[in-house]
Amino acid sequence: MIIVLRPHPSIEDIAKVEEDVRQMGYVPHTIRGVVRTVVAAVGDETSKDSLEVLESLPCVERVIPIQRRYKLVSRQAQPEPTVVHVGNITIGGGVFHIIAGPCSVESYEQTVSTARCVAGAGATLLRGGAFKPRTSPYDFQGLGVEGLRILQQAKKETGLPVVSEVVREMDLGLLVGAVDVIQIGARNAMNYSLLEAVARSGKPVLLKRGMAATVEEWLLAAEYIAKNGNHNVILCERGIRTFENSTRNTLDISAVALAKQETNLPVFVDPSHAAGRRDIIPALARAAVAAGADGLMVEVHTDPELAHCDAAQQLSVEDFHKLVADVEPFVVAAGKMPGWRTGKTE
Amino acid sequence: MIIVLRPHPSIEDIAKVEEDVRQMGYVPHTIRGVVRTVVAAVGDETSKDSLEVLESLPCVERVIPIQRRYKLVSRQAQPEPTVVHVGNITIGGGVFHIIAGPCSVESYEQTVSTARCVAGAGATLLRGGAFKPRTSPYDFQGLGVEGLRILQQAKKETGLPVVSEVVREMDLGLLVGAVDVIQIGARNAMNYSLLEAVARSGKPVLLKRGMAATVEEWLLAAEYIAKNGNHNVILCERGIRTFENSTRNTLDISAVALAKQETNLPVFVDPSHAAGRRDIIPALARAAVAAGADGLMVEVHTDPELAHCDAAQQLSVEDFHKLVADVEPFVVAAGKMPGWRTGKTE
Amino acid sequence: MIIVLRPHPSIEDIAKVEEDVRQMGYVPHTIRGVVRTVVAAVGDETSKDSLEVLESLPCVERVIPIQRRYKLVSRQAQPEPTVVHVGNITIGGGVFHIIAGPCSVESYEQTVSTARCVAGAGATLLRGGAFKPRTSPYDFQGLGVEGLRILQQAKKETGLPVVSEVVREMDLGLLVGAVDVIQIGARNAMNYSLLEAVARSGKPVLLKRGMAATVEEWLLAAEYIAKNGNHNVILCERGIRTFENSTRNTLDISAVALAKQETNLPVFVDPSHAAGRRDIIPALARAAVAAGADGLMVEVHTDPELAHCDAAQQLSVEDFHKLVADVEPFVVAAGKMPGWRTGKTE
Amino acid sequence: MIIVLRPHPSIEDIAKVEEDVRQMGYVPHTIRGVVRTVVAAVGDETSKDSLEVLESLPCVERVIPIQRRYKLVSRQAQPEPTVVHVGNITIGGGVFHIIAGPCSVESYEQTVSTARCVAGAGATLLRGGAFKPRTSPYDFQGLGVEGLRILQQAKKETGLPVVSEVVREMDLGLLVGAVDVIQIGARNAMNYSLLEAVARSGKPVLLKRGMAATVEEWLLAAEYIAKNGNHNVILCERGIRTFENSTRNTLDISAVALAKQETNLPVFVDPSHAAGRRDIIPALARAAVAAGADGLMVEVHTDPELAHCDAAQQLSVEDFHKLVADVEPFVVAAGKMPGWRTGKTE
Repeated sequence: MIIVLRPHPSIEDIAKVEEDVRQMGYVPHTIRGVVRTVVAAVGDETSKDSLEVLESLPCVERVIPIQRRYKLVSRQAQPEPTVVHVGNITIGGGVFHIIAGPCSVESYEQTVSTARCVAGAGATLLRGGAFKPRTSPYDFQGLGVEGLRILQQAKKETGLPVVSEVVREMDLGLLVGAVDVIQIGARNAMNYSLLEAVARSGKPVLLKRGMAATVEEWLLAAEYIAKNGNHNVILCERGIRTFENSTRNTLDISAVALAKQETNLPVFVDPSHAAGRRDIIPALARAAVAAGADGLMVEVHTDPELAHCDAAQQLSVEDFHKLVADVEPFVVAAGKMPGWRTGKTE
Repeated sequence: MIIVLRPHPSIEDIAKVEEDVRQMGYVPHTIRGVVRTVVAAVGDETSKDSLEVLESLPCVERVIPIQRRYKLVSRQAQPEPTVVHVGNITIGGGVFHIIAGPCSVESYEQTVSTARCVAGAGATLLRGGAFKPRTSPYDFQGLGVEGLRILQQAKKETGLPVVSEVVREMDLGLLVGAVDVIQIGARNAMNYSLLEAVARSGKPVLLKRGMAATVEEWLLAAEYIAKNGNHNVILCERGIRTFENSTRNTLDISAVALAKQETNLPVFVDPSHAAGRRDIIPALARAAVAAGADGLMVEVHTDPELAHCDAAQQLSVEDFHKLVADVEPFVVAAGKMPGWRTGKTE
Repeated sequence: MIIVLRPHPSIEDIAKVEEDVRQMGYVPHTIRGVVRTVVAAVGDETSKDSLEVLESLPCVERVIPIQRRYKLVSRQAQPEPTVVHVGNITIGGGVFHIIAGPCSVESYEQTVSTARCVAGAGATLLRGGAFKPRTSPYDFQGLGVEGLRILQQAKKETGLPVVSEVVREMDLGLLVGAVDVIQIGARNAMNYSLLEAVARSGKPVLLKRGMAATVEEWLLAAEYIAKNGNHNVILCERGIRTFENSTRNTLDISAVALAKQETNLPVFVDPSHAAGRRDIIPALARAAVAAGADGLMVEVHTDPELAHCDAAQQLSVEDFHKLVADVEPFVVAAGKMPGWRTGKTE
Repeated sequence: MIIVLRPHPSIEDIAKVEEDVRQMGYVPHTIRGVVRTVVAAVGDETSKDSLEVLESLPCVERVIPIQRRYKLVSRQAQPEPTVVHVGNITIGGGVFHIIAGPCSVESYEQTVSTARCVAGAGATLLRGGAFKPRTSPYDFQGLGVEGLRILQQAKKETGLPVVSEVVREMDLGLLVGAVDVIQIGARNAMNYSLLEAVARSGKPVLLKRGMAATVEEWLLAAEYIAKNGNHNVILCERGIRTFENSTRNTLDISAVALAKQETNLPVFVDPSHAAGRRDIIPALARAAVAAGADGLMVEVHTDPELAHCDAAQQLSVEDFHKLVADVEPFVVAAGKMPGWRTGKTE
């Protein structure tokens, strides 16, 4: 770390900083500049306490960390891509997958018919919310356990592995027994307690980026899971909060490229939540493929007009067919195999 | 709600929208404009399903809600200010309170000596984190149960009621037994499951705004608590994420004014987390008072340099003395009584 | 427009609003809801004054415009794509072009050698700054007139048409005489006076989005140019300001899709300024192609290390060769013809 | 500056960086860390070229500047506050001033009657737009020269010095002859050419912060003016673009505190543009005073309903009277003299 001192530090100030640096296990190197003095603290930042506490000294202006704070998920630690196995599907190993399904599970008929349609169109995993985190307490909160049962039936009928969100620790046992991939949603992306619990379950985790999380914070959330012994993490970019209001969120396509470069984890993109509107979902999906994503997660409803949530962003089955056809040449251009061409899930 | 149709809708389109509006319990009024056609749906939006699902119809461009989505916490529902009773202290009733203490409880000595100092300087409640949500899994996560025990001792020795954060539902019972106000932190501001659990505990809740929460989402989080039977909610603005990087967050002073105007709840401001740097905390504290806040929450450490977290934003005891003196004339100008002049906590 | 009244308006309030609406040339339709009353004002919003002034009435809560404010550049007004002719190149008509060159023109050698290299690698237009807007007054501000002369020489030697930025009206004459496309940079994206002057010059304009401009504001800036008689506008997305700090700006890939859908103008993407770092420029370039962009604008320097500005984001000539090869399959997948395969510029 | 090398640099890499640092006039100090190597470059950063060009070297990860880039406007360079003289008024010297008037000059009657009213209520300077930068080319763009004439008459009748915005260099001569303070609006906050021209006019400048400008960029804009020989700069915070949409912009109250601390310039706040809505303007005004502002700039219209622009944020004369009464005790608490109590302008 680099400790930048305020202008004109006294000899005592510098000695104090050096002493503190030493006590925390680093070796101080002081450089007296023409205008500013800095103390470089040599030592492995990830195995010692942060020197940021020195910012409390009146003579210190700021402390600048040099190393990244995530280790287990970084490419430096493990350059080979992590491949996550879900049923007989492999994620992150060169096959491009699409997770599709309704925002929320509303009924047996709706879920199974949507599952059949998306399976037929190219989806290789099914999504569906049984427990829904909703901004307003007056909005539909999901079917709960009944929703999980329906998802299991849909899986039985289509063979698609199931992805569903957990919103509270107490439901985790139910989800572990019922689904193949547990999703941590954007609202819980900094709910570290939930991250740890999901990690301990050993199940594959689809980890959405928080709506105001930096890329570093997102990767540290993944590190929480990895540190608790679970390396089956699929990152999912879903847009961030910005001033732009023509879309619900701003899809941060750079974050996809950075996550691929910085970590060894598979990276998915959710264009439905990013856009919040149907019309540009195909364009965002193609961009995600081109930026290096390993898969997509999209909302599809057999009758979007009757959807219990986020109706504006749900694709119809016909839209979804077009989407798959639309992204396929880009998947090929990206050197990946479309999951719907592998024959595995037929 | 107002349903805006795309240009040149057919007669069938309009009839379909009107029929859907009717089926959802609203009365449609169609207005054919020169350029655009809109359907106004008459009915109480808070007691019916949202018409936003109509955005899934190809002929609908967007659906515009007219009413606010929170009810119980709104001034329209209850114009009188909510007064929250904590021990023999009243919050939101014209007395201005300062909650002070360390970011995290680190030891008996540190906590009790800080508590004594802040009590002597004007604080009327003590804060201290026993369970800490940390961005990196490698950072100090709090003393846990031991921290709660220390807070109880500090309370015994100073008489200050205690505010502490809950980060997981499973700890709630411990917190309920040990502290006077339970804090929901910014990272859990959309953890609805935790909001509901805290609500059911019946304890006063200090609800921080999420770092990317709109004012409406913040007030809806409060509505979650109120809807679950707990009206003892203290709102706390702590800065939002923006592009500006000279402060850790951007204190949204307008949100303080809006929360006071829109709701009947007391509103606090946490200038420590907003600034992330000591030097401007007094200015932000004064601004908070002037904008109408009912209190402040600030981080104070007897030895900031040894703090286990957020050292750069912790005031020393001497700084805190100055802060109290600094804000006092503004509290008086705002027509409020400084809590440290009421004699109640001496 | 829809005028939403505050709760419980008086009969006089409503009559006053209706009268004002009528006086401004609209026909009022009042709908008394169960909870709220709204007045729908029927009339073409783009040919009358905005009713937003009614927000000054105490009984009015807000006024919601229904129509878009741009006309000439919209697809509704002109569904066919605008094709911009630059020398013997056509932009926006199905051929994908890359504008490449140094951030700033530094010398004859640097500029001509870069121009030759990028022409050889696939660029079909040359970029180079002669007048540079710099955040600090102490930074290099460009070679000015001398820079324009160098650009003309580079054009003579390579045949590449030249794009260069105007930063003040007084330089416009010089630029008009020397370059083929005049760029409006992000910092001047709301400098309406400059937009009008550039429009009147009749030259093709490359219009960058402002760093905090909404998509609507960006398109309205284009409308300023079109309204002043110049339809040769090329939009250019270059990233927006957000909280994310691992990239210099956040490339708003959705804006590319929206601009293509909403307007008839060609849309380019500048991944260099968006990223501010070399490593992810190829990924952003591919994403831009996939989202529907008509071209790219990238910074290339024969010796990035010696660049006078934005060194971190300048590609080397070798990097640029790789970039062109990298994007080509995506250009083909997008159904566009790579400009470097048309044989025109060889 | 600190140059952070990528992991495992070769001896040649380090030698190359050191050589480059030396050639640019700095003295390199290399510190080989356990994990990372950094090169500290010693030398005055404000009098040499930035080492950021080294980011183009493959072995360099990033370059971290240590010093601030503004000099002339900094408190370090000149600790005493800059006092700007406007007529017989002094700004920044302990007297608190309010600039008030309509968004745009619409007619003689409107302007003069507003001027009289605001002068009677406490304003000590008059604002009024003659040249208006408008987002849409179809909106009212101001009365131009006629507007300046009206402002001069209003000044004659009330004695209030006049503040008005310049939007193009060619109008500057007219403004210099007609007004007392020239405003640079948020949209032109990075129009460096206009900043330089205004600087050379020698007139006092009210410099608004750009809607996406960091505090540093805002102060560098002031530095442009100071570097061109004009130290009569009044900074004006007017809110920044964020995700929050219940206000038009987010007033960055921290920026007021930082600008006061970092520079020697007077700092004003414009709560009207920050809020974009009348109801919370008083709260923001009080907060501005408390945070250390030297004055306010507010929009007032004798008949807000007839305003040609930004109607929702214009105070009525009655509102303005209340505002002045509302802020006065806070001005006193802040240790400043209310301008309306000095008797100078009566």
